[in-house]
Amino acid sequence: MSDAIDPVTLAKRLIACPSVTPATGEVFDILEAALVPLGFEVHRFVAGAAPDGPVENLFATRGAGSPHLGFAGHLDVVPAGDGWASDPFVPEERGGVLHGRGAVDMKSSIAAFVAACADIGEHPGTLSLIITGDEEGPATFGTPALIDWMAARGIRPDMILIGEPTSEERLGDVVKIGRRGSVNLWVTVGGTQGHVAYPHRADNPIPRLARVIDALEALHLDDGNDAFQPSNLEITAVETSSNATNVIPGWARAQLNIRFNNLQRGADLVELVRRTAQAAAPGARVEAKISGEAFLTPPGPIHDIVSAAIEAETGLAPRLSTHGGTSDGRFLISLCPVIDFGPPNATMHKLDEAIAIEDLDALRRIYARVIRLALGGA
Amino acid sequence: MSDAIDPVTLAKRLIACPSVTPATGEVFDILEAALVPLGFEVHRFVAGAAPDGPVENLFATRGAGSPHLGFAGHLDVVPAGDGWASDPFVPEERGGVLHGRGAVDMKSSIAAFVAACADIGEHPGTLSLIITGDEEGPATFGTPALIDWMAARGIRPDMILIGEPTSEERLGDVVKIGRRGSVNLWVTVGGTQGHVAYPHRADNPIPRLARVIDALEALHLDDGNDAFQPSNLEITAVETSSNATNVIPGWARAQLNIRFNNLQRGADLVELVRRTAQAAAPGARVEAKISGEAFLTPPGPIHDIVSAAIEAETGLAPRLSTHGGTSDGRFLISLCPVIDFGPPNATMHKLDEAIAIEDLDALRRIYARVIRLALGGA
Ligand SMILES: [Zn+2]
Ligand SMILES: [Zn+2]
Repeated sequence: MSDAIDPVTLAKRLIACPSVTPATGEVFDILEAALVPLGFEVHRFVAGAAPDGPVENLFATRGAGSPHLGFAGHLDVVPAGDGWASDPFVPEERGGVLHGRGAVDMKSSIAAFVAACADIGEHPGTLSLIITGDEEGPATFGTPALIDWMAARGIRPDMILIGEPTSEERLGDVVKIGRRGSVNLWVTVGGTQGHVAYPHRADNPIPRLARVIDALEALHLDDGNDAFQPSNLEITAVETSSNATNVIPGWARAQLNIRFNNLQRGADLVELVRRTAQAAAPGARVEAKISGEAFLTPPGPIHDIVSAAIEAETGLAPRLSTHGGTSDGRFLISLCPVIDFGPPNATMHKLDEAIAIEDLDALRRIYARVIRLALGGA
Repeated sequence: MSDAIDPVTLAKRLIACPSVTPATGEVFDILEAALVPLGFEVHRFVAGAAPDGPVENLFATRGAGSPHLGFAGHLDVVPAGDGWASDPFVPEERGGVLHGRGAVDMKSSIAAFVAACADIGEHPGTLSLIITGDEEGPATFGTPALIDWMAARGIRPDMILIGEPTSEERLGDVVKIGRRGSVNLWVTVGGTQGHVAYPHRADNPIPRLARVIDALEALHLDDGNDAFQPSNLEITAVETSSNATNVIPGWARAQLNIRFNNLQRGADLVELVRRTAQAAAPGARVEAKISGEAFLTPPGPIHDIVSAAIEAETGLAPRLSTHGGTSDGRFLISLCPVIDFGPPNATMHKLDEAIAIEDLDALRRIYARVIRLALGGA
């Protein structure tokens, strides 16, 4: 068994690196330096080129053969924003709470998992860490590149735990067994620009855009199912080619986002929006970017393992949720069953992001139980 | 009688001053220097403060008593924009056409009127020029300040000719005997900003804004009358408080403009928009800025004088129109009957703005006839 690692100390060292997405360099050096003495073989590589790259990634592995438990996470953080009570990149404990950007999303989870690995020591099978520097950004060359890297070497975990912050009221009350898919769309209605005093020489696209919005709002996508809430469409912005008070604009555009469950496919939704928009405004153009399809890990061993570990440490039977934003599980599900579990998410992406020291310690013990239950031994 | 003035030479000297709104200094010096030898008493003053001022203005007068004919115009021009065939502020004759910013709107009209004054020499009554440096901008301290200045000195013309470009296909085919009013409005629909993955915690204002647009578009304002086309409402822009793909915006706004005839009053239209918007989206906020009320000079001497002058020089019986954008007639109508007549407007506010030399010469002769018919004598 290795020497114990204090997860608070490691979390602080990671938070002290201002690794606003994409993360590079020092924050990876710190993680590597913590893993090597624990017997991990650490591989680091840089993937991709501008505009979505380059991105730094790390894959670490210990042991061999089955079963293979992977832990996935990211070292990048969202920008700090102004108005923090203390410097977001100077980790600070106040009243039993650790403050800093990444304290929740998700440097503490990584520190807790590394500490759990130190606690475990020897084990059957394989334990690996799949860590990207770009989850908060475009993610094009983050986890997808790690998946390619593993595939090229014949590496494929049997189950993956992602350390994203999933708890809501208390540590352990919620885990995520799937996520909705997400697609962004832009509907552009064309017209003919002109001076507002001569409307007969122009063709105003805005009234047609309003009819497109009416028609999109009237769509009923589905009623959800046992695992997922109903799919939901939101118009997120509208804009016009001009903002002058005396000009009829040449085009008007609505931006929308659909969060969808596993009754839907991204491409079908794009086609539905296209048909609906073009029925309301002939000639409307639709562009789309599918961020990820919906995914779900059906009931199985990884649920039981994580639930049992949580219950043993906290007494809570976690709710199996598919709510909220997406995670890199959208990519990792192509490999094996995936579950997300991590600290309370109330302060993620907010000012004064913070985790209770008590939760960080409990997280380390829960992760250690997950490792034992998944791999057996020690 | 004074020495003749070549209107082309004077127009070129005015165009060579890059008097992008508001006009100041040199362009006024040139006009003053042309008027003083013709026996005009020239008064110049600066009015107003930021943000809509200061603005330079000029009032010039010759003779005394009735009748009093005023000529109104502006020395400021709209920005040149990129892509001219020649430098917009280096006047250039090519193929009998004078090119430059202001050639049409409206330095040539001013040059033609000054040349007409030189041609006339002595006359009964009063001849005045009411020239502002800000017609193309906010105009707050332009013609309104000239009206105040005249009022303070008991000066009030009996009729006013404005030299704005009103001709369409040929010089003299159209004069303007009134203009529609104009009001800009902003309808803001409030909501609650939130993350698109958690729509139940947010309240999206965009669908309600679409219903406001539908309702505004369905309004029928009026059918127009003999003098005016129907009043018209156009949505000129839409925007939202956020453009992020993952955020439901906190508010959505439509900007609109109504060009209205003399069957309407600006304040009534604002109230109609407010009622309509609030019926479609309770709580919608409406802001408004009335640029000017509709105005009309009913049939009378100034129409007959200008029409007769045009017909004598061109053989055309001009159409009496109220179409198109507004002019400073919206202010001057408070003093006396007003009519707009000037060169063909095809290139106004456009690249390669230009006037035919032939039209500039004819304009000078038409203006001279207007002065003779209005004042009698010489
Ligand atoms: Zn995260
Ligand atoms: Zn003008």
